[in-house]
Amino acid sequence: MGFLARGIFVILTLVAALLFQQYRNLTKPVSAPKIELQEYWGTGDADNYTEQTSVEPFELNYDEEVINTLKSKLADFPNLPQPLEGAAFQYGFNADRLREIIDYWRSDYLERWSKRQSYLNQYPQFKTQIQGLDIHFLHVKPKGVRNPKRILPLLMLHGWPGSVREFYEMIPKLTTRSDEKEYVFEVIVPSLPGYGFSEAAAKQGLSPAKIAVIMRNLMARLGFKKYYVHGGDWGSIVGNLMATFFQNEVLGVHLTMCVNSAPIATVKTLIGSLAPSLAVGDEYVSYYYPLTEKFKLIMTETGYMHIQATKPDTIGATLTGNPIGLAAYILEKFSTWTNPAFRELADGGLDQYFTLDMLLDNIMIYYLTDSITTSQRLYSEAFNIRELTKEYDRIPTRVPAACPKFRHELFQQSDWVLQDHYRNILHSKHYENGGHFVAMQFPEILYTDIVQFVNRLYRREDQY
Amino acid sequence: MGFLARGIFVILTLVAALLFQQYRNLTKPVSAPKIELQEYWGTGDADNYTEQTSVEPFELNYDEEVINTLKSKLADFPNLPQPLEGAAFQYGFNADRLREIIDYWRSDYLERWSKRQSYLNQYPQFKTQIQGLDIHFLHVKPKGVRNPKRILPLLMLHGWPGSVREFYEMIPKLTTRSDEKEYVFEVIVPSLPGYGFSEAAAKQGLSPAKIAVIMRNLMARLGFKKYYVHGGDWGSIVGNLMATFFQNEVLGVHLTMCVNSAPIATVKTLIGSLAPSLAVGDEYVSYYYPLTEKFKLIMTETGYMHIQATKPDTIGATLTGNPIGLAAYILEKFSTWTNPAFRELADGGLDQYFTLDMLLDNIMIYYLTDSITTSQRLYSEAFNIRELTKEYDRIPTRVPAACPKFRHELFQQSDWVLQDHYRNILHSKHYENGGHFVAMQFPEILYTDIVQFVNRLYRREDQY
Repeated sequence: MGFLARGIFVILTLVAALLFQQYRNLTKPVSAPKIELQEYWGTGDADNYTEQTSVEPFELNYDEEVINTLKSKLADFPNLPQPLEGAAFQYGFNADRLREIIDYWRSDYLERWSKRQSYLNQYPQFKTQIQGLDIHFLHVKPKGVRNPKRILPLLMLHGWPGSVREFYEMIPKLTTRSDEKEYVFEVIVPSLPGYGFSEAAAKQGLSPAKIAVIMRNLMARLGFKKYYVHGGDWGSIVGNLMATFFQNEVLGVHLTMCVNSAPIATVKTLIGSLAPSLAVGDEYVSYYYPLTEKFKLIMTETGYMHIQATKPDTIGATLTGNPIGLAAYILEKFSTWTNPAFRELADGGLDQYFTLDMLLDNIMIYYLTDSITTSQRLYSEAFNIRELTKEYDRIPTRVPAACPKFRHELFQQSDWVLQDHYRNILHSKHYENGGHFVAMQFPEILYTDIVQFVNRLYRREDQY
Repeated sequence: MGFLARGIFVILTLVAALLFQQYRNLTKPVSAPKIELQEYWGTGDADNYTEQTSVEPFELNYDEEVINTLKSKLADFPNLPQPLEGAAFQYGFNADRLREIIDYWRSDYLERWSKRQSYLNQYPQFKTQIQGLDIHFLHVKPKGVRNPKRILPLLMLHGWPGSVREFYEMIPKLTTRSDEKEYVFEVIVPSLPGYGFSEAAAKQGLSPAKIAVIMRNLMARLGFKKYYVHGGDWGSIVGNLMATFFQNEVLGVHLTMCVNSAPIATVKTLIGSLAPSLAVGDEYVSYYYPLTEKFKLIMTETGYMHIQATKPDTIGATLTGNPIGLAAYILEKFSTWTNPAFRELADGGLDQYFTLDMLLDNIMIYYLTDSITTSQRLYSEAFNIRELTKEYDRIPTRVPAACPKFRHELFQQSDWVLQDHYRNILHSKHYENGGHFVAMQFPEILYTDIVQFVNRLYRREDQY
C-alpha cells in the first residue's frame, strides 16, 4: 500500500468511526427527565394559590343575546374579492363557498341553536382545577356494565383546530357493550388548556410536555391510576408524551399521528427515501415517499403553523370575535387535510364526509370561548429552540402503542422510523382513505381500530 | 502510485471537474426572455377588451357612512386574552397596545378624517387602464423648473404592507429645487396592481415580473421613455425586474432591498459565512452574519410570508372588513421590521419613528379598498416553483444601481453577493439605523441617498 493509499485508508477508517459514533449518539436512548408534577400556570403568584380539588358540573349555556350578536356579525359578510379565474381552493378558502357556509350558519344552523346546544350538552361535562387552571372535560361512564374489570378508562385528546366535539360520534360506540369487545370504555375527553372551555395559561411555557402533566393530573384527580390514551394532532403529541413520562400509568396509547421527532428518525427517513423497502412494505411506500412530494405538500400546508409558532397573538387578534374569518381559517383545514385533492374542488369537498353542522359545532366552541389565540399559542410553546432541544422522543417508551396510518394524514412516519421511540408498536394498520380529522370523518373505522388494539391488551383477569 | 491511490486520484479529479462545471453553470449568465408587453389581466376574454388609454383624475372620497361603519367596527373590540405574563411583542401584537391604538383610531384619527383625506389627496392622483387593469398613481410635477433636461422622471414603487402613502414625506423634497442637486424629480407613485386603488388581476399568474411590465407600460403611457426607479420591499423586486428587462429605459435603479436570488448568491453567502472579509468590510460583517442568527430572525419573521404564499385567500378572508385585525397584522410589521429589538417593548416602539396618523393612513388605504387579499396574492404568484425556476436574477443588468443597506432591513445581501446580477452598483452605503419602512422612518436620509446616487449619473448635457 503506497503512502497516499495508507493515508486514505486512515481517513476512511476515521470517517467510519465518526459515522458509527454519530449513529451511536443518535440512537443512544436518553433517560426520562424529572417531571415536576405541580407547576403552576394560573395568574399571579403560585404562593397565593390553593387548588380547588372539587369536580363541578358544567354545561354550555349561551343566551339569545350572544347568538344574536353572532348573527349580526355573520350578516356583515365582507367584500371579498372574487376567486381568481379558474381557482377553487388552491389560493386558500374559496370566497363563494365561504359565503354559502356563512349563510347556512346564520339562517339555518343558528336558527336551531338551542338544539345544537343540547346536542353539545348530551354528555356529562365537568370542570376541575389543575395546577391553577380550570380544566373542562366530558366524562362518560358506560351503561349497564357492573364489573369494574370490564370497564377501561380511556382519555381522548383532541388537537388544533379541533375540540372535544371531534369525538362526539365515537363516544356511544366506545361506552356501549358490543360483540367485538369484552369490555367497555369509560371515556374522559378534556379540552386542552387554552382550548374551548378549559382555561388558558397565564404564564409562558405551557408546552405539550407540560400539558401531558396536566392531563395526567386530571386522570389522577378522577381516580384513574392506569388508563388508555387516544389522541390526534396535538392530542397525539401530548398522548405520546404521557406514554413517555408516565409509563406505569398508560396502559396503551393509540395515536392517529404517531411522531418520532428524534434525530435518528430524520436519518432513517432519508435512508428510507433511497431504499423504501427498508422502511415499509412495497404496497405502502406511497404513504411516505417520494420525500420531495411530501415535503412540497407539507410546505404548502404549514403556513398556519409558521405564523402560529411565531406570532400567535397577531393571528389570534385577527380571528377573535371574527366568526367569518374563523370559519375560513378553520374550515380550510377540514377541507385540505381531509384530502389534498379537495383543493381542486370549488366546494372544498367539505360535505363529502362531514355535515356542516358538525363543522360549525366545532367553530362555535372557538367563537363562543374566544379561545383561538390561546389555542394558537401552543404552537409557539412547542416550536421553539428551548423546547425542541429537549428531544423527548429519544426517551424510549415501552407502553403498547397503536399507530394507524390514514392515507391523507399530512405527516406520516413508518413504523421503522417510529420504533426507536415507540418500542412496542402492537397495532399499525394502513387505511386507503382518511384524513387528519378521522374521528369525525370515519368514527366507525377509528373505533374499530381502537378496539382491535385494545383487544390485544385486554385480559379480563389482570386489569388493574 | 498504488491502485487504490490511482483510483482516489481519478475520483478527486472527477469531483474537481464536477465542482468546476457546477460553478460554471451557476455563474453562466442567462439571456433575457422575450417579454410579452400586452398580456391581459382583466376579467373575461381579452378579445373583448379595448384599452381605455385616457388618464383620469382620481381622489379619495369616502362619505360619512363608510367612516361611521368603521367607527362602529372599531368600537367592537374583541375579547382578546391578556398577553402572557412578561410578554411584550414576542408572541405577536400585544393586545393592550392594540386596544390603545384602536381607541386612538376611532376617537381621534377618525374624528379628523376629512383632514386626513385631504392630506392623502394633497398630490395629483390619476387612474389609467393598462393591460386590462385600472392602475392608480400619484403624479407630482416639480414646480418652478422649466428646463426639461433638469427634470428627471422617478418611478417610486411601494411594497407590502405599504402603499403610496410610504412616499408622502419624501415627495416634496424630491420635487423641489435645492442646493444638493442640479435637477428635480418628476415623481410617479403607482399603487401596485391589487394594492390600494389599483385594480387586482382577475387571472392567475400576475407575478412581480408581470407587474414590472405593467409599470413599464404605465411609464410609457405617461410619455416617459427613460426614467429612474426607486423601490422597497416588492417595489425593490419589481424595480429590479424592470432594470433587468428594460435596460434601455431604466436610467438608474435605487432599491432599499436589493436581492440577488440566483443560485450563485446562495453559494457566495455560504462562502462569506466562512470568510466574511471576502463578502464585506470588517465593520459591516454584522449586517450579514452570523448566518444562523440571520436565519433565525428570518424564520421568526416570515410566518406571514409562508401563509400568504400558500393560502392568501384564507388569510385575506380573516382580514377583509376587519379593521382591528388588519391593524394588528400590519402594524406588527411596522414594529418588528423597524427594529427586531422592539419585540421587547410593550408598545412595540411604534411611535419612536412613526406617528400613529402615518401608520393609520396606510391601514385606511387597505381597509377602504378591501385590497388586503389581493395584496397578499402577490406572494403566491411570486413564490411558486413555476416562477422561481425562471431565475431572472441570472440575467445580468448593467443599469446603474444603488443598494443602500439599512441596519434593520430583514433580508440583506452584500454587494459581493449582489454584483453577479447587478453588474453596475454605483452607490451602496451602510446605515447604522433604519428598518424596512425607511421612506417613512427616515425620509430625509433616504432622499439624500437617492440624490447622492443620481448625482453620480446626472449630466445636464446628456439626459434623454
